[in-house]
Amino acid sequence: MRKPVKEDKFTFGLWTVGWQAVDPFGDATREALDPWEYSDRLAELGAYGITFHDNDVFPFDASDEERDRIVSRLKSAVDAAGLTIPMITTNTFTHPLFKDGGLTNNDRGIRRFGLKKILRNVDLAASLGAKIFVMWGGREGAEYDSSKDLNAAFDRYKEGLDTVAGYIKEQGYDLRIGLEPKPNEPRGDIFLPTVGHALALIAELEHGDIVGLNPETGHEQMAGLNYTHALAQALNAGKLFHIDLNGQSGIKYDQDKSFGHGDLSSAFFTVDLLENGFPGGGPRYEGPRHFDFKPTRTEGMEGIWEAAAANMEMYLRLAEKAKAFREDPVTKQLMEAASIPELAEPTLAEGESYADFMASEDIDPEAAGKREYHYVELYQQAMRHLIG
Amino acid sequence: MRKPVKEDKFTFGLWTVGWQAVDPFGDATREALDPWEYSDRLAELGAYGITFHDNDVFPFDASDEERDRIVSRLKSAVDAAGLTIPMITTNTFTHPLFKDGGLTNNDRGIRRFGLKKILRNVDLAASLGAKIFVMWGGREGAEYDSSKDLNAAFDRYKEGLDTVAGYIKEQGYDLRIGLEPKPNEPRGDIFLPTVGHALALIAELEHGDIVGLNPETGHEQMAGLNYTHALAQALNAGKLFHIDLNGQSGIKYDQDKSFGHGDLSSAFFTVDLLENGFPGGGPRYEGPRHFDFKPTRTEGMEGIWEAAAANMEMYLRLAEKAKAFREDPVTKQLMEAASIPELAEPTLAEGESYADFMASEDIDPEAAGKREYHYVELYQQAMRHLIG
Amino acid sequence: MRKPVKEDKFTFGLWTVGWQAVDPFGDATREALDPWEYSDRLAELGAYGITFHDNDVFPFDASDEERDRIVSRLKSAVDAAGLTIPMITTNTFTHPLFKDGGLTNNDRGIRRFGLKKILRNVDLAASLGAKIFVMWGGREGAEYDSSKDLNAAFDRYKEGLDTVAGYIKEQGYDLRIGLEPKPNEPRGDIFLPTVGHALALIAELEHGDIVGLNPETGHEQMAGLNYTHALAQALNAGKLFHIDLNGQSGIKYDQDKSFGHGDLSSAFFTVDLLENGFPGGGPRYEGPRHFDFKPTRTEGMEGIWEAAAANMEMYLRLAEKAKAFREDPVTKQLMEAASIPELAEPTLAEGESYADFMASEDIDPEAAGKREYHYVELYQQAMRHLIG
Amino acid sequence: MRKPVKEDKFTFGLWTVGWQAVDPFGDATREALDPWEYSDRLAELGAYGITFHDNDVFPFDASDEERDRIVSRLKSAVDAAGLTIPMITTNTFTHPLFKDGGLTNNDRGIRRFGLKKILRNVDLAASLGAKIFVMWGGREGAEYDSSKDLNAAFDRYKEGLDTVAGYIKEQGYDLRIGLEPKPNEPRGDIFLPTVGHALALIAELEHGDIVGLNPETGHEQMAGLNYTHALAQALNAGKLFHIDLNGQSGIKYDQDKSFGHGDLSSAFFTVDLLENGFPGGGPRYEGPRHFDFKPTRTEGMEGIWEAAAANMEMYLRLAEKAKAFREDPVTKQLMEAASIPELAEPTLAEGESYADFMASEDIDPEAAGKREYHYVELYQQAMRHLIG
Repeated sequence: MRKPVKEDKFTFGLWTVGWQAVDPFGDATREALDPWEYSDRLAELGAYGITFHDNDVFPFDASDEERDRIVSRLKSAVDAAGLTIPMITTNTFTHPLFKDGGLTNNDRGIRRFGLKKILRNVDLAASLGAKIFVMWGGREGAEYDSSKDLNAAFDRYKEGLDTVAGYIKEQGYDLRIGLEPKPNEPRGDIFLPTVGHALALIAELEHGDIVGLNPETGHEQMAGLNYTHALAQALNAGKLFHIDLNGQSGIKYDQDKSFGHGDLSSAFFTVDLLENGFPGGGPRYEGPRHFDFKPTRTEGMEGIWEAAAANMEMYLRLAEKAKAFREDPVTKQLMEAASIPELAEPTLAEGESYADFMASEDIDPEAAGKREYHYVELYQQAMRHLIG
Repeated sequence: MRKPVKEDKFTFGLWTVGWQAVDPFGDATREALDPWEYSDRLAELGAYGITFHDNDVFPFDASDEERDRIVSRLKSAVDAAGLTIPMITTNTFTHPLFKDGGLTNNDRGIRRFGLKKILRNVDLAASLGAKIFVMWGGREGAEYDSSKDLNAAFDRYKEGLDTVAGYIKEQGYDLRIGLEPKPNEPRGDIFLPTVGHALALIAELEHGDIVGLNPETGHEQMAGLNYTHALAQALNAGKLFHIDLNGQSGIKYDQDKSFGHGDLSSAFFTVDLLENGFPGGGPRYEGPRHFDFKPTRTEGMEGIWEAAAANMEMYLRLAEKAKAFREDPVTKQLMEAASIPELAEPTLAEGESYADFMASEDIDPEAAGKREYHYVELYQQAMRHLIG
Repeated sequence: MRKPVKEDKFTFGLWTVGWQAVDPFGDATREALDPWEYSDRLAELGAYGITFHDNDVFPFDASDEERDRIVSRLKSAVDAAGLTIPMITTNTFTHPLFKDGGLTNNDRGIRRFGLKKILRNVDLAASLGAKIFVMWGGREGAEYDSSKDLNAAFDRYKEGLDTVAGYIKEQGYDLRIGLEPKPNEPRGDIFLPTVGHALALIAELEHGDIVGLNPETGHEQMAGLNYTHALAQALNAGKLFHIDLNGQSGIKYDQDKSFGHGDLSSAFFTVDLLENGFPGGGPRYEGPRHFDFKPTRTEGMEGIWEAAAANMEMYLRLAEKAKAFREDPVTKQLMEAASIPELAEPTLAEGESYADFMASEDIDPEAAGKREYHYVELYQQAMRHLIG
Repeated sequence: MRKPVKEDKFTFGLWTVGWQAVDPFGDATREALDPWEYSDRLAELGAYGITFHDNDVFPFDASDEERDRIVSRLKSAVDAAGLTIPMITTNTFTHPLFKDGGLTNNDRGIRRFGLKKILRNVDLAASLGAKIFVMWGGREGAEYDSSKDLNAAFDRYKEGLDTVAGYIKEQGYDLRIGLEPKPNEPRGDIFLPTVGHALALIAELEHGDIVGLNPETGHEQMAGLNYTHALAQALNAGKLFHIDLNGQSGIKYDQDKSFGHGDLSSAFFTVDLLENGFPGGGPRYEGPRHFDFKPTRTEGMEGIWEAAAANMEMYLRLAEKAKAFREDPVTKQLMEAASIPELAEPTLAEGESYADFMASEDIDPEAAGKREYHYVELYQQAMRHLIG
C-alpha cells in the first residue's frame, strides 16, 4: 500500500493523538506532549494538516501573551513541517461553566461568556488561515425534559450561530462554519442530534449561507443512522463543508476508533462517495479528509501513532477498492440492471402538465411488483472488490 | 377520569383499529370489519375524527365506481356519527410494485405510477374536506449502500413533493402536506429518517410553504431521539402540521403501542408541550391529537377497543397532571432557580455591537461552573405530579 | 409522601454522591468531601447503609497504616450515624494498569496484581461485616475482536471468580459475591454483558454456590433488555444476591440517573416485583435497595442531595402505587382474564406419561387463536394506579 | 473464488429461500415454490444440506397422510440431490393460537398443544436422521410487564425444554436441542433474549446435557452484542451445538441479510473463530455452517439465488482471508506483543496457596499502566488481510 502524501489531504485534530485516555471510569494512561510534538509526528506520517480547539493548545485561563506565544510556536512548527491548519474549533464543553451548554445555557451570563470565547477563536482561526470553523455543541442539550424552554433554546442556538456568522462577515474573514451534530453524550439529548436537524436549523438562519455541516461518522451511527446517506443529503443541499471520519461499533458510547475500524462496509461506501462521487455526478466534497478519532485507552505512546496511521491506511485501501469497484464493467452492468441511472431522470417529462401526466399510460403494477433489481448481487459485487 | 369528548380532537387512523395483526412471523389474529364499523365504534369511544389511507377503505385495484361507492358509504357513516376526516394519506408501501419505493424508486415507470396514485388521493382528500395530507415514505430507502444514486434520490424526493404540493396549489385545495419521518423498517435505511432530515428537505422545496411535519412518537424513539425535542424544533420552525402519537419501548422494531404505553415520562412531557406550550410562550400546535397505534397482536376483537380507548385515557390523564405541574408555585420557583425564563432573553443586548459585546465584563467562570440549576429537583417535582 | 426510614433498607455507594462529575468531555464540576461527610448526610436523608470501592475511601497507593486509619474513621462515623455497610466492592478499573482488565488482562502480572487487590478487599469487606462482595468487571473486555483469546478469557474469568470465592470459603467469611454485568463502556464489548451471561458463567464455577448477581437497571437497558425480566430470571435461578437501582434513558452511554428518572413504567414494575413478589409467589429479594446513580453533572453541591433523595422518594412512591395496583380487585379480575395464574400450573399433569399426553384431546386451534388476553387493559389498569 | 462444495457443510433453511417477502407493511413480492424445488436449486449451488420447520413443508392442519406424502417426496428429492437434513425445527409462532407463545403461553391448553406439536416434530426429525433440533421461542415473551408471572414463565420454559429433552432420551433418539435466543421481535421482550440467558436456563435443566445453543448472528447484534463473543462463551461452556449465520446492520428490526452483508469485520472474526479456532486451541465447532437469511424483499425470483449464493461466497472469501491472517508471521508477532498467548496461562501457579500468592512480589503498577498492547496495530493487521 502506498504511503499517505500531502495530496491526500489527511488532517488530524491535535486532540486526537493528544488524548490522554481519561474515560468515565479511568485515569489518564498516557502523558501529554507539547502541541508541536504532535504536529511534527503527524507530518512524518504523511498528514496534510492539523486542526485544534483553542484549549488543545493553550490553557482556558491563558493570558493573551501566553496564548500568542504558544500559538506562534505551534504555527512555526506547523510551517516548518509543511503542514496546513485548515480548520479551527472552540472548546465550549470541558470547563465546568459550560456544564449546561454555551450557546443555549439557561444562564445568560454563561451564554455571553461562551459566545465571546467563540468569537475570539474566530479571530484566531482567521489569523491562522483556517477556512473552516467547526462548532460542536456537545453541551447544548439536556438530561431532563423539564430543564429547558425548548423554543427559547432553538432561538438562542440560532442567535448564537448568526452572531458568529455575522461576525465573520463583518470582519470579512474567508471562513465558513461547520456544525457537528451528535445525538447524545455528554448530554442525555443533545440539540441538533443528527445531520438532518443541523441542516434544518441552518435553513432558519439569517447568515446560513456560510453555515454548513461537519458530519462525524460515529455520531450519526450512534443514532443508528447511515453516515453515507447523511453525507449525501448534506451534499445535495450544498452544505457538506467538512467531515470527521472515525470508527464506531453501533449504538453505544462514542468510541472514536480509527476510521474503518467500526462498520467497515459503511466506511467503504463513504470513501466511494468521497472519492468517486455519486454515480450520476452531482455535488462533490473537495475538502480535507479529517480524522476525529481517539487512540483506544489500552494503547501506549507507540499505539497513538499506529492508530493515527491506521486511519490513513484504511482510507487509502478503501479508496483503491472503491475505484476498482466503480470502474469494473460488471458493476456498470449491475447498476444498469438495478435502474440506478434511471433515478437521475425526472419523474415527470419536461413541461408535462398535470393533466397530461394523469392521462398518461400506466405500467402494469403486477409485472412491476415482480421486477428484479439485483441489489444483493450488486452489493456482493462491491464485497468482491472490497475483500477480493 | 372524564370521558373523551369531541373537543379533545382525538383522531384515529382506520388502519390502527383495523390492523389484523399480521407480523413478520405470524398470520392475522383478527378479522377485518367494514370501514364504517370502525368509525362508528370510534365515535362511541369519544373520537373527534378518523383518517385513512386510500387502501384502508377500497382495494388497490378498485374501479372508480367501486371506490366512489365505498368512500361515499364511509362518508355517510362518518357524518352520521358526527365525526370529521381531518387527514388523508396514501398507501405507497403495501403493493409489491412499491418494494423499492414510490417517489424514489429507481424505476421511473413505478415512480410515475406512485405519484399518480398520490395525486388521485389528493383529490379525494380535498373532496372529503381533509386539511392535512400525510406522506409517509416508508419504502423510500435502501438496504444496500450501493443500490441508489443518493443525490438523484434526494432530487426525486424533492421533485415528488413539489409535484404534489404544486398540484394542491394549482387545484386551489385548502390542504397542507405533513411528512412522516422514520429511520428504518420496512427499509434498512429510510430516507428522511428523522424530523430533522425532513425539515431540512422541506427547506429545499419550491412549494415548501405548504409542506410540514407529521412526527410520530415511536419513529423518533426508534433512533433513540427525544420526541418532545423533535416537536419543539418543528414548532420553532413553524412546521408542526400534524402529529402521530403512540408508544414505543426503545430502539427496536416499530411497536405502535397505545400512547403512553412506551416511555411514560417522555409522553408526559409531550402532552405538557401540546397542552401547555413552551414555558415562555411561542408557537403552539392546535391540530388533532392523532393516534397511530396498533392493538398488540395478542389482543382479540375486544382488545382492539380497549387499546384504542387507552390512548385517549392516557392523554387525558397526562394532560391533567401536566396542567397541575405547570400551575404549581413550587414548579415556578424551581424553573426560576434553573434560570429557565432567562433562556428566552437574547444573549446579546438589543443593538449591541460586536465591539461593545467583546468589551463587556465577564462573569467569573469558576463561580459559574459551580452554580446550581436544580434540574434533578425540578424533574422530581414533575414526577411528584405525574405519579403523586 | 412519607420519609425514608432504616426499614426501607435504602443504601448508597459512596462513589454515587461522591462523584465529582468528570466525564469524557468535561472536568470536575464538584469538589470532593471526606467519606464520612457523605455517610453522615446519607444517614440524615434516611439511608440504611453505605457501600464503597476500596479507592472511594483510601488512595490506590495507600499504605496499610493509612488505609486502616481512614477506614477506621469511616467505620466510626458509619456506626455513629446508625448506618450499616452491607456491601463492599473493589476498584479494578480506574488505575491505568487495569486498562485491559484485571481478571482477564492478557498480562499475567497484572492479573495477579488485580486478584490480590480483590482478595485484600475481601478481607476488608469481612472485617466490616459486609455480606455481599460486588464484582463489576467493567474493564474485562475488548474493543477489537483480535485482541483476546476468548476461550482463555472465559477460563481466566472463571479462575478469578473461583479464586475469590474459594478464598472466602477458606477464610470462613459470611460473604457472597454479586457479579454486575454491563454490555459496554468503558470497553467496546465487556465480557458478561448481561445478567444472562453472568448467570451462565456462574453455572460453570467450582464455587458457584456463593456467586450470584448484582443486576443494575441501566446496564440491562443499555442492551435494550427488560430489567424486570432480568431480575426474574436471576430470582428463578436463586441468584439475585443484590441490586443496583438507577435510571437510564435507552440505549446510549451509561447515564446513572436517579432511580425512576429513566424508564418510569419499567421502574414501576421493578418495584412491584421487589415489593410484591411474583403473582403466584416464588423466590423473593430481601436485600438492600441499593442505588448506584450519579448526580447529573449540571448539579452543584446541593443537587447531589436532591438527586440522592429522589431515588428514595421515587422508590417509595412506586411501592405505594404497586401495592394498590396489586390489591385492586379489578387487577385480580384482569389477571384472571389473562390466565396469569394458569401459567403456574405445570403443562403436563402430574405423572402424565408421554403416551397419555400425546393421546390427550386437543383444544380447537382456531378458537384458541381468537381468545382474548386483555393484556392492554391490564397494563392500562397498572397505569391507572401509577398515574391515577 | 472457488465454488462451494459439500465438504464446506453449508446448509440452508427452506424458509430462507422460500420467504415470500411479506413484511409488516407489505404483501408478498414472490411466489412460493414446492419444497423440493428449493432443495434442488440449493444442491446445484453447492449446499450440503437443508433444514426446515414442519410448516415450511406441510400445512399446519395437514392430515398425517398429507404430511407423510409431502415429507416423503421432499426426502426423495433431498436424497437424489445428495443433500442431508442435519437440523429440523418446529413452527410455534405463525398460527394465531401461538400469539402469546407455545411453551410459556398463559393458557395451559395452548401450551399442551404447542408441546405436542414439538414432540411430533421430534419424531419427524429423528426419522429423517437430523442430529439437531432447533427451538426458537420467538413468541415466548411479552409486550407488557404486567402480562406474565415471570417466575412461572421460567418454570414453564424449563418444563417444556425438559419434556422435549426427556422425550428424546426416552425414545433413544440421537438428537440434541439447540436453543435460539433473540431479544425482541415479534414480541416486545422475548424470554431468553441472548446467548447468555439461554446458557443460564440450560444450566437449570434436568436434561440440560442434550440442550445447547443455536446462536444467530443478527439476533445477538439486535441487542448490540458481539456475536463472536457469544459463540466463544457457548464454546467455552461446551454448548455450541449449531449456528445461524446471517447479516444485520445494527440495532433495529431483524434484517436477516446474507452473511457478511451486515457487520463485515465482525463476520470476518466469526469465520476466523469457526475455521481457525481460538489462538490457544480449545473447543471447536464442527457442525454445519447454517444460513438463516432472507432474500431482501426487493429481490425477485432470480435475486433469491443470488442472495443464497452470496452467503457461501462471503463465507469462503472470509475463510481464506482469516487463514492467511492467522498464518502470517507478523500476526503471530503482534499477538505475542499483545500477550495474547499469556492469557491461556493460569493466573495462579499450579498448587499456589493463597498465602504464597498474597506474599508474592508485585509488578510495578505505574510501569504496567504504560505498557503497550498494540491492539490497534493487530486489528489493522487483520484489516490488511481482510481488504488487502
